[in-house]
Amino acid sequence: MSDQKVISLITDFGFDSPFVGVMKAVIISRSPEIHIVDLFHNVAAYNVDEGGFWLTHSYHYLPKGSIHIAIVDPGVGSVRRILAARYDGHIFLAPDNGLLHQAFGGQQDIEYRELDLPRLSDLLGLPLASATFHGRDIFAPVAAALAAGVCEFEELGNTYSDVTPARIGQVIKIGNEINGAVMSIDHYGNIITNIRGKLLDGHENCTVECSGHRFTIKRTYSDARAGEDIALVNSFGVLEIARAQGRAADRLGVNRGAKVTVRFNKT
Amino acid sequence: MSDQKVISLITDFGFDSPFVGVMKAVIISRSPEIHIVDLFHNVAAYNVDEGGFWLTHSYHYLPKGSIHIAIVDPGVGSVRRILAARYDGHIFLAPDNGLLHQAFGGQQDIEYRELDLPRLSDLLGLPLASATFHGRDIFAPVAAALAAGVCEFEELGNTYSDVTPARIGQVIKIGNEINGAVMSIDHYGNIITNIRGKLLDGHENCTVECSGHRFTIKRTYSDARAGEDIALVNSFGVLEIARAQGRAADRLGVNRGAKVTVRFNKT
Amino acid sequence: MSDQKVISLITDFGFDSPFVGVMKAVIISRSPEIHIVDLFHNVAAYNVDEGGFWLTHSYHYLPKGSIHIAIVDPGVGSVRRILAARYDGHIFLAPDNGLLHQAFGGQQDIEYRELDLPRLSDLLGLPLASATFHGRDIFAPVAAALAAGVCEFEELGNTYSDVTPARIGQVIKIGNEINGAVMSIDHYGNIITNIRGKLLDGHENCTVECSGHRFTIKRTYSDARAGEDIALVNSFGVLEIARAQGRAADRLGVNRGAKVTVRFNKT
Repeated sequence: MSDQKVISLITDFGFDSPFVGVMKAVIISRSPEIHIVDLFHNVAAYNVDEGGFWLTHSYHYLPKGSIHIAIVDPGVGSVRRILAARYDGHIFLAPDNGLLHQAFGGQQDIEYRELDLPRLSDLLGLPLASATFHGRDIFAPVAAALAAGVCEFEELGNTYSDVTPARIGQVIKIGNEINGAVMSIDHYGNIITNIRGKLLDGHENCTVECSGHRFTIKRTYSDARAGEDIALVNSFGVLEIARAQGRAADRLGVNRGAKVTVRFNKT
Repeated sequence: MSDQKVISLITDFGFDSPFVGVMKAVIISRSPEIHIVDLFHNVAAYNVDEGGFWLTHSYHYLPKGSIHIAIVDPGVGSVRRILAARYDGHIFLAPDNGLLHQAFGGQQDIEYRELDLPRLSDLLGLPLASATFHGRDIFAPVAAALAAGVCEFEELGNTYSDVTPARIGQVIKIGNEINGAVMSIDHYGNIITNIRGKLLDGHENCTVECSGHRFTIKRTYSDARAGEDIALVNSFGVLEIARAQGRAADRLGVNRGAKVTVRFNKT
Repeated sequence: MSDQKVISLITDFGFDSPFVGVMKAVIISRSPEIHIVDLFHNVAAYNVDEGGFWLTHSYHYLPKGSIHIAIVDPGVGSVRRILAARYDGHIFLAPDNGLLHQAFGGQQDIEYRELDLPRLSDLLGLPLASATFHGRDIFAPVAAALAAGVCEFEELGNTYSDVTPARIGQVIKIGNEINGAVMSIDHYGNIITNIRGKLLDGHENCTVECSGHRFTIKRTYSDARAGEDIALVNSFGVLEIARAQGRAADRLGVNRGAKVTVRFNKT
């Protein structure tokens, strides 16, 4: 085992601005022996739910002990809190705006701290935080300090329990229906939902509906004819609507946030 | 000399999904002391030929001993094989769909192995592979094992020779004509072909044709007037059609796959 | 303190070509123990001023001793010089086309060298430079040599003073008016100017004008109503025009290079 520490980043900063680069510069300046992994920087702008969704579906590919910065932060500069969370051997830093609740809302064994910024500023020599770029001024140096062992999770601030709820709620299963939502559109135009494939276990015959379209479930893209729209349980274990070698989202006019319904038919 | 191992990545995953990030997370989890180089993630979606083209034109900038993952994989989840190749002191992993043939088709001293997935699953503790994300479930852990010395090239599987041919074939030179194809469009809208500049050596007076347009060959972008379309041998040693400080591909309506003809005129 | 060396990159290469990847491959091949930080690769194509602007606003987040490659290079292949600069404990490499003047034009304690390419080719074993990709053939190996201690700043070439001036000049303050320019549009469509917030100190009541629109100054995005356009001093200390959770640049039709005027009103 290596002691190489990892900081991962999920943001809606994109690569078409130097914001990601500058955050990484701050991390490296304070913790030179770090591995930084860009998990995802193209969360749709301000889409807190998509950020939380990808955080929960990607963090666990990194080793335990990793520190994950997740920033989708329409309220930056307002009075919103910044939280740290410890769960499953990983540490997470995010604004308290529903992102962490979207990621880990149903978990019992998660521990939250509210960042005590005046104290951390003294302890870590933080710069005077700008009103609009807490990623650089707070998240990056705090993560670097955790990675370098300068500061422990318990020192970040008081425990906290009143976490802001996610805007898109949990998937609901009532009778013969499961109701979920579109969380992300991927590079290929595939439509990714929050409905876990496990919920479909044992139901051979079911129909997926979204934005007025209806789909049947197949195993993989290559089981579809070219241009056919299908539903499948994707590699992250959730229901996805895809078009073989085509862009389902563009073709069907489906956006993030759209309602998705699975109906179990009588067999 | 350093023993720092390098894994490079060429994919059509883009950065607008977390697929690249998750692959890198898997690699780092299994081989922490690795340098990962993102050679290129914006191969046009499903364009196996463009992936192979850039692989052959970029791998050799990394040190011998590097491991290169190249994934453009419209058939993921079907029965297509996964191949490893050893050539020029480098190791390559790619689906058997023409990508490696596009990259190295004309080479004699290349050695192929077909990944023996059941055996590698045991040896390396691979997860049960998803039907749609072999980059994460197979390519990343196998490359990490090679980099970490856990597994040798010879252990990957049996030798293999029946490599799937590329869709876009070799450049053909007949009489006074060379026929090739557009392989890529770059960030500046330059049109990049598979016609090596060496084929033009000794021919002072030649004409380039593509999509009904005709071009003369100059040495560099700065030899053209603003807005003029020219052909030149680019920095990768292949013929390129460019517009000085403009976007030739957009202006001329040229796409990947278009035919390109060079005519040697009598002098 | 760690001795980990850092090379940062600012270019207009984008990620939709393998140019950045290949440059990093060359750096790693020559200096394996390096940290490469992608500060920014989406400078608008050929926009030398935006490149210089972001260089000056981002380099100092990296440790002293870092080496910064900044390439926006419409004249690549022509006779334009390549410069190295030493300033504030950092080293910079860029084409002599106004980029460094835009970044550091007003500074006294900056030292320039003109790269002596024939000599460096011998000393470092540079490849025969292509006409169109000096990033790979010159900038990357020279930066790697500096990082690895193979070559010192003083050995790069003769001192140089006749630096090419920037196209977009310094901000001018005359009477009650400050005149500047739009330097960049960020990922959120925010309009970023070269007018430093310090110039506004002590002026409570001022108006910002750009492309026929007028704005008032607020502290942060969250002080604006949804859809309201505001001006604020952003996290890089310069005046920015923004729309709360919207895209100001698209909505207002403002592009890079547009004139920006601040008027101090009588109070």
